Amino acid sequence: MAASVEFWFEFASTYSYPAAMRVETVARGAGVDVVWRPFLLGPIFGAQGWRDSPFNIYPVKGRYMWRDLERTCDALGLPFRHPTQFPRGSLLAARVATAAAGAAWQPEFVRRIYTANFAEDRDISQPDVVGSVLTALGLDATDWLAQAGSDATKQRLRATTDEAVAAGVFGAPSLRVGDELFWGNDRVDEAVAWARSGR
Amino acid sequence: MAASVEFWFEFASTYSYPAAMRVETVARGAGVDVVWRPFLLGPIFGAQGWRDSPFNIYPVKGRYMWRDLERTCDALGLPFRHPTQFPRGSLLAARVATAAAGAAWQPEFVRRIYTANFAEDRDISQPDVVGSVLTALGLDATDWLAQAGSDATKQRLRATTDEAVAAGVFGAPSLRVGDELFWGNDRVDEAVAWARSGR
Repeated sequence: MAASVEFWFEFASTYSYPAAMRVETVARGAGVDVVWRPFLLGPIFGAQGWRDSPFNIYPVKGRYMWRDLERTCDALGLPFRHPTQFPRGSLLAARVATAAAGAAWQPEFVRRIYTANFAEDRDISQPDVVGSVLTALGLDATDWLAQAGSDATKQRLRATTDEAVAAGVFGAPSLRVGDELFWGNDRVDEAVAWARSGR
Repeated sequence: MAASVEFWFEFASTYSYPAAMRVETVARGAGVDVVWRPFLLGPIFGAQGWRDSPFNIYPVKGRYMWRDLERTCDALGLPFRHPTQFPRGSLLAARVATAAAGAAWQPEFVRRIYTANFAEDRDISQPDVVGSVLTALGLDATDWLAQAGSDATKQRLRATTDEAVAAGVFGAPSLRVGDELFWGNDRVDEAVAWARSGR
């Protein structure tokens, strides 16, 4: 059985964008599998009393983040466009990603949603935007949007978010290898190396 | 004139410890000078309404930070012991580092204070601890502690902290190259590379 790393991500999260775009490449290079874990930061931030992104609540930190993200994307050769709306509602896309657990197209769906949000400035909260990504992948958008809205999917995403809280996840992206937690795009390589080492 | 990077640090800051221990080595390898800028996070956090370290205010994030710091120090081969008190009062040591600006021993004083706090669990808020570091460097501790307490030094440290705020610094360590700001031990190499590139 190959070593694996859990990749916990939130579609509204800025640093999850570069991490999502590269985690599979980094992991594959090390012979490590990626388990994609979509979850929601909203309930976790809400429990802190935050009703908005901390990058909006603390504008000095937010200004830094946008510049740092731009530099990070530049260094990785990733397209980046400052979204005209932040954060964008991630619930629908997270539900589709949840419903798609185990499907071969799930990772590519995730990357295309991030690209829509952070490189193409498209509103990923909208069913037509999410649907167009599904269609471009050759999928039945109507069917998958319906599955995203099912009680089973909703319940599964809630359970995953509860699991994130129980695991000590407080931000995104986070990576987990066994009980070992890593936070941020800056820890992608370290988490994969940890998984590979089999510690 | 050699390229230079400003290293903004706060002696109570956990991630400033590994950054302070290695920044000069990284910079020297790139032919870049380090300008050491001691400042205080207290007034900056206070302006956010925080009266304690965010790592204490948000214990989930704090637990993660201690484990991550331990891993970071392990990877760098740096000794680390979880301080029995956090954060420790950094005012006195920051004033000594301020008074020592330009002195050849300033960087080594900084490293020894961080080592005292994060590897030896010594209370760096105490004059006898700071004094013992000065004495070990062959300096007149009484004289330097007096210079640390002078009005000129106090005023200079306040002015430096004001400069940090004006530069958009919101945490430590931060590194600055011209108008370009980098935050965290994770950005030491990138900041030095930026300085070297002369952008």
